[in-house]
Order: sequence, then structure tokens, then C-alpha cells
Amino acid sequence: MDYMQESLKKHYEWKGKLRVSSVVKIADKESLSLAYTPGVAQPCLAIKDDPKLSYELTRRWNTVVVVTDGSAVLGLGNIGAEAGMPVMEGKCALFSEFAGIDAIPIVLSTQDADEIVNTVYNISKSFGGINLEDISAPRCFEVERRLKEICDVPVFHDDQHGTAIVLVAALKNALKLVEKDVSTARIVINGAGSAGTAITEFLLANGAKDVVVCDRLGIIADNECFNSAQRELSKKTNPRGLVGWLKDAIVGADVFVGVSVKGALSKDMVRSMNKDAIVFAMANPSPEITPEDAYEAGAKIVATGRSDYKNQINNVLAFPGIFRGALDARASDINEAMKLAASTALANLVGDDLSVDYILPKPFDERVAKTVAEAVKRAAIESGVSKL
Amino acid sequence: MDYMQESLKKHYEWKGKLRVSSVVKIADKESLSLAYTPGVAQPCLAIKDDPKLSYELTRRWNTVVVVTDGSAVLGLGNIGAEAGMPVMEGKCALFSEFAGIDAIPIVLSTQDADEIVNTVYNISKSFGGINLEDISAPRCFEVERRLKEICDVPVFHDDQHGTAIVLVAALKNALKLVEKDVSTARIVINGAGSAGTAITEFLLANGAKDVVVCDRLGIIADNECFNSAQRELSKKTNPRGLVGWLKDAIVGADVFVGVSVKGALSKDMVRSMNKDAIVFAMANPSPEITPEDAYEAGAKIVATGRSDYKNQINNVLAFPGIFRGALDARASDINEAMKLAASTALANLVGDDLSVDYILPKPFDERVAKTVAEAVKRAAIESGVSKL
Repeated sequence: MDYMQESLKKHYEWKGKLRVSSVVKIADKESLSLAYTPGVAQPCLAIKDDPKLSYELTRRWNTVVVVTDGSAVLGLGNIGAEAGMPVMEGKCALFSEFAGIDAIPIVLSTQDADEIVNTVYNISKSFGGINLEDISAPRCFEVERRLKEICDVPVFHDDQHGTAIVLVAALKNALKLVEKDVSTARIVINGAGSAGTAITEFLLANGAKDVVVCDRLGIIADNECFNSAQRELSKKTNPRGLVGWLKDAIVGADVFVGVSVKGALSKDMVRSMNKDAIVFAMANPSPEITPEDAYEAGAKIVATGRSDYKNQINNVLAFPGIFRGALDARASDINEAMKLAASTALANLVGDDLSVDYILPKPFDERVAKTVAEAVKRAAIESGVSKL
Repeated sequence: MDYMQESLKKHYEWKGKLRVSSVVKIADKESLSLAYTPGVAQPCLAIKDDPKLSYELTRRWNTVVVVTDGSAVLGLGNIGAEAGMPVMEGKCALFSEFAGIDAIPIVLSTQDADEIVNTVYNISKSFGGINLEDISAPRCFEVERRLKEICDVPVFHDDQHGTAIVLVAALKNALKLVEKDVSTARIVINGAGSAGTAITEFLLANGAKDVVVCDRLGIIADNECFNSAQRELSKKTNPRGLVGWLKDAIVGADVFVGVSVKGALSKDMVRSMNKDAIVFAMANPSPEITPEDAYEAGAKIVATGRSDYKNQINNVLAFPGIFRGALDARASDINEAMKLAASTALANLVGDDLSVDYILPKPFDERVAKTVAEAVKRAAIESGVSKL
């Protein structure tokens, strides 16, 4: 099927993917007086006296905003506010379908970091959580950091952390299969944007020691070729002081992680990797190398972001359960402990079925969101960010 | 029934009055690929090339945001963001139940006019219309004026215009019954906040010539006792140059319109009015004078905001149909012609059943939203603000 043209056709039929409806039937004087004036004054006053009752008397306990500035939508780049909406609606539909969350899509008319922070903060008390989406690097780092500081609800940039959580789950299982350890594995990340940066940080936080990050201008380094976030990242990575390009970094590597562009990894590069090479080629919709080529060049385990190959690394494995767990714990944050709990729960779901063709649960495995949510909720409580 | 306590109980049961759901079932690879990646890229690109396709390919065509800063919620005053949410959810539920509109409640963490304008503008491209709600005067005038200038979707402060539209419809029918003309009627408005100001402006725009406006400090005038909006209003009203208080203004008046507080109108004041006096006492939940007292003091036609008396002046008669019509016309504004069309359609619905006890349709009359919507849509097209 030509998903592109068929999707466009379907979008004309659907005329939007979300519906907002009343849970209260309002059809007579009584119901109007209870759901609206004059009765509604009473829950208002109750919340005024105790603002946390907003989680009992309104839909806030189940509500997440999905917000973008349209600056980095899918692989389409900076397409602006209105054009980002089909993706935001889709994400909200997934929140609903996978986790029963009321998710509200917002597209912003500004791409200025200060304005984004102010605007999202100003609407934040309407929601139980904030999912930032498709905001370009390096602004996304600052926007997320500042919002986490000032908002009393969890803030989560899914392009960063959702990807990192699923990737680390996949890598954990893949390394187990090839009997290698994350602390000694040589890992190369290609693509130093939001996802690549978050993956690197999450790997480092979880035991990786030898991570080398490449971008369009080669192995990232602390010089003016790279942006401030990349220069910071370079200081924590590349312990062997490599210089050059992906083709130089990849020699002898155990793991390739691509969050870059189609065709970035050649068969020759795969051939230069260590024995039992792991290739995660996640560029969307076309991976850095096709699984066929990667296997032919000797890779042992291959994963992509695509649903038409085995081993799909898809954020939908993470974000519904993560927010479900955070909401259920009434968490004030989605912290490292919760992210690690999500990643571990996801990896463990594979269990004894683990094989080179099955390193992650399938996106439609019904256990996923529930299992991730429980692990995240528990981690929220244990790490002290639950407000229950 | 004690609506207050019963409503609180119901709100604990409901745990929020709105549900967001997906109109697309996402349960397999196919549906995921069409509603989300990779297929969703195609509607995104289509909107990027032609932003007005956001009305075809997303839910925008049917979506209104209901937004407050919590500064003037019902008659409760400045109760803040979270505490305003039960009213916003209720309003959204009414949009859904009466007009099939997807309405999204937003409460703002700021009460600064500049910040409100920036924030609402920054999220405006997510919606097909903006319903401002429960923002205190005089900031509400500036906020609405500036948002109307910069947003390309209709902006409507319901506390002002919804009230004015329904009031003018009621007055039109009431004057017909007592055979008086709006251009010669002496009209006294008590309460110079958002509703009183909008009612006055709308009356003046529709033929009234002798309107006198009172507030807590008496008949408004161009002096330092009154805020800037009231001083401006004083210049357009009070043609006979009255000074003093409501008790002075009301002598000989044909019409009293109260948007003030319980008990503001005494029986003696009603007795001082002209023959066939019309008393619209809309303070909520307790009117300026009870209908029993008003009739006893000689009023001919009495209306209130309450559902337990005849002649209920309720905004729900207007806002669902007005936004339905504006959305259906893809209007860039809700202008004077559309407001007048709504008011006239509402008044005409009463038809031959017009009597002193029936000057407006009932809130649950199923013809109302549809009839108002059709009139508003037509007026939008005729006045040139439709983008169809």
C-alpha cells in the first residue's frame, strides 16, 4: 500500500482524528444546574481552597497536552504550526487508544524558546502532563529544562526520551544475545539532534563508557563546527579521542545507532565493525541501511523504526505507558528512575522468547502499556515524585 | 435540590466532564501507518503547502478553545486558574451537547493582559475559534480587542456578547408586547462590568438612544471614580445628563437591566418606573429583585438568569449556535452583523406564542442552536467574513 497517498485520502475522510465529548448528558434543567450553573460553583470553590482537588473534580488527572512548535515534524523539518497538527492529533489518538489518556493537541505560532516556555507554562495548569513533540535541537533541550523547572506537572520531550527508552531496552536485549556488556561495548551514535543526544545521555547514565557521536560534520568535538549542545556532549563522549567521520568511528564498533538519514551507513562500514555487530538504523521512513544490506555485510542483529521489518524500535512502546504511569502516580516529574523503569520493563517483556528477530515487544502487544505504566508508577513512588 | 452540594458530589463521581477519544481505531500496523507514521507525513505536507487545508485534514473546523484566566469566574470573583476549570469543562460540555463542537478547556496561569494575549495567540492556530470566558473587566475589553486584531479565527468573549445577544432578543420581544420602541425607550443598565458594557454597546448599535448605566458608585461619568472603559462608555450614554444613583436613574424608566448583585433593585424603585415596566434582573444565582417582588411592585414583564422562573435569559441560548455558525462559515470573525443575526433569530423563534411569560425560547428548545447557527452562518457570508 502507498501509505502516503492513502493516508492523505483517509485524512480527508476523517476530517480530524480526535473527538471531544461530554461525559455528562445535559438535556434538562437538572443536569444543566449540576454540570454548569449554579451547582458548578461548589467544585470551583473546593478547588480554590485546595488546588490539588483539580485532580479529583476535573479531568486533569487523565489529561496530557501534546505540544509542538512545528520546527522538526517527523523527518519533514520546519513545516510550521498548522502543518504539524496531523502528527499531534495522531499522537493524541495513540495516547487514547493505547492508554486511555485524554490528550489534547496544541500547535504553537512561535518558535522562540522564551515564548514557547511562557506559553506552555501559562496553559500547564489545565493538564496533568506535558508531552513536548517535534521541537528542533538544540532549542528543545533548553525548552524542556526550563519547563521542568517551573511546571508542577511532568514534562517529557518524547523525541528525546521516548526514543532513548525504547532504544536502550532493545540494546539491553541485543547485547544479552551476543553476550557483550554495555560497559565495554563500543557504541557509535550517528545523528546528534534531539534523539541522538538523549540516547547518548541515557546510555551513559546506564553504564555505557565508550560512546562516540557523529553528526553531519563528523565526530562531534568541542569546536565551532558544532552547536552548544553538541559541544557539551562531546566532552562526555569519545573516550579514545577519535577524530574524523562516521567511517572512522565505526571501525571495530559493537553497536551502531542511527538517528540520522537514509543511506548514512554503508555495507563497507558494517563490514568494518566488530564481530556480532548490532545495527539499529532508525532513520524514518528510510533507514540508514536496509536490514537486507546490513545482514549481508555481516551484522548479527538489526532493528529499524519500520513496521515492515522485524525488531521495530517505535516510541509507541514507551510514551503511552510512561504517561499512564506518571498520571496514575500523580508524578510531578518523569525522572531518570522512571525512564529506566520503563526501559527495563519493556526489555523484560520479551522474556524467554528473546532472539535476534525478537528483541522488543511488538507495538500492538497489549501487555506493553500496562506493564510500562505499572513500572513507571512504582518508580515514581519510590523515587519520591508521586503526589499521591 | 441543593444544587451546590449535589454538584460537588457529582463532580467527584464524574472526575471531569470531558473525554477526548480517537475517531480512528488504531489496532494494527495498517491503521497505525495511516493515522500516524509514515502516512501522516502526507497531510502534513499538504497543509504546509496550503495552510487552509488545516480545516480539511485536522479537527480544526470543529474545534473551539474555551479559555479563562480565572479572574471573574461566575459570581465567585478571582479564584485562579485551577478553580476555574469546572466551569470551563461545563461550558465545553455544553458546546458538545448543544452544537456538536469539540471544545477544549484551557485555564491560564497568568492574569496579565499582555501575557494572556500572547499565550492565546500562540495557541490559536490549533483551533477554529476562541471563546474567552470569565475574564474580569476592564482587562477583558483590551484582551478581546487585541486578539481579534491578530488572530485569524473568531474571538468572542461570551460574558460580554453572549449575554448582550440574548438580552437584546428578550428586550425586542418584551418591547413588542408593551408596544414601545427601542429608540424612545428609557433603559437603565445596572452593572458596568463586561456584560453591562457589552449590553449597552449592543443596544446602542441596535437603535437604543436613551441608555443610562449605573455601577457601585452611581451613574457612570467621565471622572476618576470610574475605570477607563466606564469613562468611555459614559460619553456615549446618559443623554439627559442624569447624576446620582440607580434610584435616580430608574425614575420613569421603561426598562431595567441588571447584571449586578442580589437585591440591587428595590420594590420602590420598580414603583418609580414608567407604566408597563420591563425588569430583567440577571444577577446570578440571586437576582437584583425576585420576580414575585417585581410583579408586586407593578412590573409588566420580568426575566432572570434562573431556570426556576419563566423567561430565563441564559447564554446557552446563544454561544453554541453562534460558534456552530461561525465554524460552518469558516468565519474569520464574529462581527456585529453575526451577533445581530443571532439575536434576531432567537427573538423570532418565539413567534406567535409570544406572551409576558414567554419572551425567549427555552434553553432546551432543540430548534435554538440550529436556527441561530444558520442565521449566523448566513450573516458571516453576507458580511464578507466567511472564508468558504
